[in-house]
Amino acid sequence: MFSAKTYIDRRSGLQAAIGSGIILLPGNDDTGMNYKDNIYPFRQDSSFLYYAGIDRPGLTFIIDADNNREILFGDESTVEDIVWTGSVDSLVSQAARAGIADVRPLSQLPGFLAGNKQTIHFLSPYRADITLKLSSWLDIPAAQIPERVSVKLIKAIVAQRSYKTTEEIQQIEIAVNTTIDMQLKAMQLAAAGVTETEISGQLHAVAIAAGGHISFPVILTTNGQFLHNHPHHTPLQQGQLVLCDCGAENAMRYCGDLTRTHPVDKKFTTAQRDIYDIVYQSYQAAADAIRPGIRFKDIHLLACEQIAAGLTALGLMKGDPREAVAAGAHALFFPCGVGHMLGLDIHDMENLGEAYVGYTDTLQKSTAFGLKSLRLGRELEAGFVLTVEPGIYFNPLLTDAWQAAGKHTSFINYEKLAAYRNFGGIRLEDNFLVTAEGSHLLGRPFARTATEIENLIASL
Amino acid sequence: MFSAKTYIDRRSGLQAAIGSGIILLPGNDDTGMNYKDNIYPFRQDSSFLYYAGIDRPGLTFIIDADNNREILFGDESTVEDIVWTGSVDSLVSQAARAGIADVRPLSQLPGFLAGNKQTIHFLSPYRADITLKLSSWLDIPAAQIPERVSVKLIKAIVAQRSYKTTEEIQQIEIAVNTTIDMQLKAMQLAAAGVTETEISGQLHAVAIAAGGHISFPVILTTNGQFLHNHPHHTPLQQGQLVLCDCGAENAMRYCGDLTRTHPVDKKFTTAQRDIYDIVYQSYQAAADAIRPGIRFKDIHLLACEQIAAGLTALGLMKGDPREAVAAGAHALFFPCGVGHMLGLDIHDMENLGEAYVGYTDTLQKSTAFGLKSLRLGRELEAGFVLTVEPGIYFNPLLTDAWQAAGKHTSFINYEKLAAYRNFGGIRLEDNFLVTAEGSHLLGRPFARTATEIENLIASL
Repeated sequence: MFSAKTYIDRRSGLQAAIGSGIILLPGNDDTGMNYKDNIYPFRQDSSFLYYAGIDRPGLTFIIDADNNREILFGDESTVEDIVWTGSVDSLVSQAARAGIADVRPLSQLPGFLAGNKQTIHFLSPYRADITLKLSSWLDIPAAQIPERVSVKLIKAIVAQRSYKTTEEIQQIEIAVNTTIDMQLKAMQLAAAGVTETEISGQLHAVAIAAGGHISFPVILTTNGQFLHNHPHHTPLQQGQLVLCDCGAENAMRYCGDLTRTHPVDKKFTTAQRDIYDIVYQSYQAAADAIRPGIRFKDIHLLACEQIAAGLTALGLMKGDPREAVAAGAHALFFPCGVGHMLGLDIHDMENLGEAYVGYTDTLQKSTAFGLKSLRLGRELEAGFVLTVEPGIYFNPLLTDAWQAAGKHTSFINYEKLAAYRNFGGIRLEDNFLVTAEGSHLLGRPFARTATEIENLIASL
Repeated sequence: MFSAKTYIDRRSGLQAAIGSGIILLPGNDDTGMNYKDNIYPFRQDSSFLYYAGIDRPGLTFIIDADNNREILFGDESTVEDIVWTGSVDSLVSQAARAGIADVRPLSQLPGFLAGNKQTIHFLSPYRADITLKLSSWLDIPAAQIPERVSVKLIKAIVAQRSYKTTEEIQQIEIAVNTTIDMQLKAMQLAAAGVTETEISGQLHAVAIAAGGHISFPVILTTNGQFLHNHPHHTPLQQGQLVLCDCGAENAMRYCGDLTRTHPVDKKFTTAQRDIYDIVYQSYQAAADAIRPGIRFKDIHLLACEQIAAGLTALGLMKGDPREAVAAGAHALFFPCGVGHMLGLDIHDMENLGEAYVGYTDTLQKSTAFGLKSLRLGRELEAGFVLTVEPGIYFNPLLTDAWQAAGKHTSFINYEKLAAYRNFGGIRLEDNFLVTAEGSHLLGRPFARTATEIENLIASL
């Protein structure tokens, strides 16, 4: 936990932004895998954690802006709980460390809310148990919960959580450095005959050993052309590329998110290096462009143009790269966005809605293939933390569909592309803080060019 | 997957047992950790898996006993899904492998159920999203779902899933053997200075590398006196015991569940060995007693009496051990049950209700401290798979509470117990199949006595 002052300051900022009414922040509960008590690793809701600081299930926090008071609803462990789980800090002492003095039994919450005439601000739930609770507490049919969400509360939270403080950046760097350890482990283990699941298991081990967990499901695959392909129980083969997109969540729940792509054979082939170098150029152009005031959508388009230019030079695309990007032809190779916000969530604040987090009232998300997967488009500001992650993907299913439909034949050289059918995919991803001057790369120094990666693998 | 015949036979057995009406089996969906798309590892519902065989989210299966038909509701992946996740088997082909021919879009399910006049049998949900679905499909308020559950369906499923077939036992043995690999890893890594989370991370790695996952949250702790204490980021210290209770879930979702307790210093102290030997005698007495026709509650009491007799011989308890157990005094040291059913769930069928799985209309669960945590009490039958897991726990918090209340002073020597305040806890657990002749220990040979464990550790 941060100091009580951190949480008190955040809450007073939120209360000032909301002005009146009740801010209702339900924490997450445990979720059963195959029955109620066989639980997934507990993950607290990030906004609850940001304002109330307490990382345990069964809590709901209320800020009553009308009466300038805060109440945490939750129950202490019983002696019988302690037989099973051991002693834990009392809830009252945890609350005190977050600057919260008023702790009441959970059973008093429904009565507190029932018949309350104040405006109640709440966020859109992403777990059904929260929907059920809100429905019951507020006497709103479950299906109507989404339309009763407080946009004012969403905007106020986004306006705070988007700007990372020094103490938050320290936590993110811890997570990024553990993520580098995960990447090193993947490079160390990758060899013909080793399975994807063996490596993935070791990536979990690194994250858990560091006192946290993985920040999102591990992507460790020789089928990098599928953007979120998860590890299979299949052995790596000579000649393949391993795409490893993984992240650690540290003990404070801040996230890292890095991608490296490396050859099973420890050396890139010429064809692999050609594509890698284009991805790297795209990455570097995007990274160099980060500064306050630039729209991230423009950085995305810049990265796309680098990809189109590189593929045109290789003969896989043709025509003018800028025109190709404007037409959307590059999206065959790069069908997603070049990055997203990062913080307590790996896609930071995604549950609050991309329209509010990554876009603004004046810049709305495109619906075009490719651009519609760009989670962040707005003007950057100092304090934002984000990923840069261009890639080139040779997806045979998508290629077949486009070719059959005759799509973008003036920009794509389908004939030449046939040789790349089994190439796979390459992605390169780092995490950056936007600073007043430009940007700061997060984490300790780590290989990113093809040569650096080959040298690093040779040294492991 | 097993053969189509396996699933077809199971379903025809279930349909015959239910006789009429619709059996409604919703499969599980993905669950978001901190937002909708950042998902926990998918876990299919075990009864869905048992009857429909398909391990992917977004499905609901219906057996219409009145019209002798089966329908699987679910959607095929779109081309756009494939950009992200790669190609997967079509749902139609997966269904065909489970002997299901009628696959319809999920959007048709609400219409199929709305206004349906047949009796609809469903199980009690353990996830809120299923509660919300049932509520919406069947037009039943969410709060009333639990009371509308079909006891007939529960009993019919328990009557099938309780008896493991040869092909199921093969799968459980795979999981048990991977669990032995996990235990070996814990013994190999345990040393002063190594953290609990480092070892826990490696246990995850073993389970994932084997192509499955963990079957329940890892218990890897030097505080074994707390029954379900989870790993902390704290280093092991000389003189401590490491209690490791863990399990693998194999690729088919069958579970293993073993516990070993071993010394950080690789050799048990005399005091540790004394307690270990009592646990082992209790374990062996319970294991030897397994046979069809015996009540598992009686095996539990036998194990308790062995613990009481051993602690009496050591001077920590006094009086007659049988009387001590009858009075419940042993529960200070062994406050839980000696075992549970095992199969597709680590506590098999726990979501169906212990009253139906572990007890019967004539043998109901005790509410006494200790016995109320015994999940299985009924007469054993050939084909049951279960755990045997006695333990002795020195829980200072519970001891203080009992001593302050003057509980069982005629059976417990509180004065002598003071020396064991920081002892910790010891548990020993294996998995058994009940056979016509008695029982069969599952998994390959593995150390269980104190001497065997010391020798094994010395050999690693």
